Amino acid sequence: MNKIEHIGIAVKDIEASNQLFAKLFNKEHYKMEEVESEGVKTSFFQLGESKIELLEATRDDSPIAKFIAKKGEGVHHIAFDVTDIHAEVARLKDEGFIVLNETPKKGADNKLVVFLHPKSTNGTLIELCQEII
Amino acid sequence: MNKIEHIGIAVKDIEASNQLFAKLFNKEHYKMEEVESEGVKTSFFQLGESKIELLEATRDDSPIAKFIAKKGEGVHHIAFDVTDIHAEVARLKDEGFIVLNETPKKGADNKLVVFLHPKSTNGTLIELCQEII
Repeated sequence: MNKIEHIGIAVKDIEASNQLFAKLFNKEHYKMEEVESEGVKTSFFQLGESKIELLEATRDDSPIAKFIAKKGEGVHHIAFDVTDIHAEVARLKDEGFIVLNETPKKGADNKLVVFLHPKSTNGTLIELCQEII
Repeated sequence: MNKIEHIGIAVKDIEASNQLFAKLFNKEHYKMEEVESEGVKTSFFQLGESKIELLEATRDDSPIAKFIAKKGEGVHHIAFDVTDIHAEVARLKDEGFIVLNETPKKGADNKLVVFLHPKSTNGTLIELCQEII
């Protein structure tokens, strides 16, 4: 894994949170994007080589809606940049991690993504992501 | 804020988690450090320009022990590197954020640190940190 690609934070109202995090970081978000398949609206702030991704649910069965109902707003996942997502998935399966989707799926920000079950990673939902080129 | 300095993850057994995260990242932690004043043992992994900090409580009244009792293992805080922590604290107070300790305190990894209350940051505990030089 090369670096922290982004930290995903679940929020109830992405417009309000865009303003809040702009004050926190003293800079504006640089883009917004909807991922229809995941039922989320996202916005991105750049900080050094990493990003903060805010996530708002667009429907009740979105993973973000379920997360907020259960745990409230806050950090939802940590995403790490990988060079070869298929090789990493194979390596991590061999190491005993629980891979939630073995076939990488299209995420926000032009990425192929795979999630690891937090049960196998000390309660932290981990995303692997590889830029689509 | 310059970059994500580290992500702090609360764990029950830092030795077991060192092994788990070494498998996840495919690299070993590079140091361990105890912060007596906070009641925590920490270990660090380097990923790009940022770090992952694992935190285990060393006593029952440690903030990490309380966090795990309430929420279980997982992401405890996100720390951002700042150039002038006093100026950032003043700016963020003006913006309405709740500062938990106005006077920066000595944290792990040779840093001055200040925490913002998660109530003012969408449920995410934010740490500002400045390298002591």
